[in-house]
Amino acid sequence: MKLIFTKSDLTKAVNIVMKAVPSKTTMSILECILIDATTNEIKFTANDMELGIETKVAGEIVSKGQIAIDAKLFSEIVRKLPDNDITLETDDNFTTTITCEKSVFHLAGKSGEDFSYLPAITKERSVTLSQFQLKDVITQTLFSIAMNDNNKIMTGELFEVLNGSLKVVGLDGHRIAIRNISLDGPADDAKVIVPGKTLSELSKILAPDAESFVHIYFTNNHILFEFENTIVVSRLIEGEYFKVNQMLSNDYKTKITINKKDLLDSIDRANLMIRESDKKPIIINITDGSLEVKVTSSLGSSNEVIDIEKEGNDIMIGFNPKFLIDALRVIDDENITICLVNPKAPCFIKDREESYIYLILPVNFSA
Amino acid sequence: MKLIFTKSDLTKAVNIVMKAVPSKTTMSILECILIDATTNEIKFTANDMELGIETKVAGEIVSKGQIAIDAKLFSEIVRKLPDNDITLETDDNFTTTITCEKSVFHLAGKSGEDFSYLPAITKERSVTLSQFQLKDVITQTLFSIAMNDNNKIMTGELFEVLNGSLKVVGLDGHRIAIRNISLDGPADDAKVIVPGKTLSELSKILAPDAESFVHIYFTNNHILFEFENTIVVSRLIEGEYFKVNQMLSNDYKTKITINKKDLLDSIDRANLMIRESDKKPIIINITDGSLEVKVTSSLGSSNEVIDIEKEGNDIMIGFNPKFLIDALRVIDDENITICLVNPKAPCFIKDREESYIYLILPVNFSA
Repeated sequence: MKLIFTKSDLTKAVNIVMKAVPSKTTMSILECILIDATTNEIKFTANDMELGIETKVAGEIVSKGQIAIDAKLFSEIVRKLPDNDITLETDDNFTTTITCEKSVFHLAGKSGEDFSYLPAITKERSVTLSQFQLKDVITQTLFSIAMNDNNKIMTGELFEVLNGSLKVVGLDGHRIAIRNISLDGPADDAKVIVPGKTLSELSKILAPDAESFVHIYFTNNHILFEFENTIVVSRLIEGEYFKVNQMLSNDYKTKITINKKDLLDSIDRANLMIRESDKKPIIINITDGSLEVKVTSSLGSSNEVIDIEKEGNDIMIGFNPKFLIDALRVIDDENITICLVNPKAPCFIKDREESYIYLILPVNFSA
Repeated sequence: MKLIFTKSDLTKAVNIVMKAVPSKTTMSILECILIDATTNEIKFTANDMELGIETKVAGEIVSKGQIAIDAKLFSEIVRKLPDNDITLETDDNFTTTITCEKSVFHLAGKSGEDFSYLPAITKERSVTLSQFQLKDVITQTLFSIAMNDNNKIMTGELFEVLNGSLKVVGLDGHRIAIRNISLDGPADDAKVIVPGKTLSELSKILAPDAESFVHIYFTNNHILFEFENTIVVSRLIEGEYFKVNQMLSNDYKTKITINKKDLLDSIDRANLMIRESDKKPIIINITDGSLEVKVTSSLGSSNEVIDIEKEGNDIMIGFNPKFLIDALRVIDDENITICLVNPKAPCFIKDREESYIYLILPVNFSA
């Protein structure tokens, strides 16, 4: 096989498929990129058995063939080569020669036949949205999923398509993040749980581009994202997702409107007074026209007052500041609405259309 | 005590003195910044007992006093406060109140009397150079010192003033870095060993400014750097420095001139083929008109040819690529001269005036 690429095309393709290369594995073939030019197009593939990515690369096929090559080393070499044409050539022993200007590398490759191909996905049920929208809904919910594996379902996100709308949900037992968007064009109903790792890597390769579209295909065991020259295939998490609608409520005793940046900055500062080991809450004290953020810890104390518009009762309630910060950071609105019931009940940060809903459980505090 | 600062003045001063706050210590007073407004000026001091920094801060003294306050927490709070006037006020129990707009912090401070003041330095012997020059000579030599404490002297740098010139030397047993600069104005002879840590922190607070000067004062046990509103005082390392002149030589059998960036990029690429655990050298093969950089390792092999101007013999010699990369990175010249004798003898990278000299020992290799 002999292929010629521009450095920029090669760099872009390698960076995309690298997202599916596992950092640690006992199977060294999984640490490889498959470079396939057996047909009239060049495709790069990586596959960690849960997540697989394949992308088409612009390049000249001088002679056909395929090779599996160590992903990390190959990507480092490509990145450091001069900005010029890069030639990749293999021999019968799978030795791969990479040449650029006067620089020549010889690497031991592996037979492409040992490589685990991506599963074949039947493209029956699908929805379409822009790369921008998909990147956004992932970023705005993914922080809420659980980091550890105690409950497998919490490490993924619900993707639910119903009546032309997409709902994406992440939760970890202390909070829930929900994004709802209405889809243009036809959309098949679906309800699947997508691994958080898949969405995290996917969001890194999606462009913030509202004009370029992603087609999502669902099967019983897999989800496939197709955009530009790339497909991302992932296994789904098996099981029944939590009945999130039962946890939501439109009742409230207190409803406030507040400048998002003021609240975020204030909690961010208060958080300085809390050491990880402390597990101290911050206290939010809402009275007519003002919200006070305060904290008392072994380091000292802080307080800050922010102007608000308020409807309903006064309330004093404690929160883990991290949960509030995470949600406030991803909201784009200048002013936000927060609904509260009592110091034991969850608070809701949401917009009028419920395009986003952040539910956060309070924590106990000693007043 | 009550003081009022602008956020920018306060941030700048805190960032300067933070460089002398130890990250770990058993004496909690050393983790503090001393804020001293007992006279008509405001001074911030930090002191880890080896390195001490004091800086004058612009600000309004509403009432005089002093306090020692946790450096890390104070700096984090200052950084996150709004960009407005910041008021700092203490009471008789050393509680310190920091106020900015509607944000109020109360921290437990400590009596300034427990703080270790900087040693008094007699300003007899001195030299003067620009901040730019001092920052440069530190950056261009400090990478060569030893990281571990096996030989205390190797963890510092020689500062030698002789006949109106300053020589700065760092070495670690495998390489030597030397910078020579001629000083304008009067300069007292001196020969001291300055701790690497001191120089590392100092270089971070020096401005790359050729119009602003640093006065350096020497005593038998200390060195003092004075610039703008700041003084940096450090203990010296005791002992006799290595006789570096005996290790230098002007003899050579091979002398080449090469584009610095081409050589650096090429070694940087070849270095990709070497894993830390390998300890493989790169091999430099010099023949008429060309220098080849090559490496063979468990990962594969690479080679690259660079055009050179050559005088003298052909030579093949092995090096630890890190040592070449470190030196090449800090050299500003477009083209450099390298002198070699044989595969067992050190190579010298230096300019005609010997304003810099980098000596690097070769390593054995199997051809």
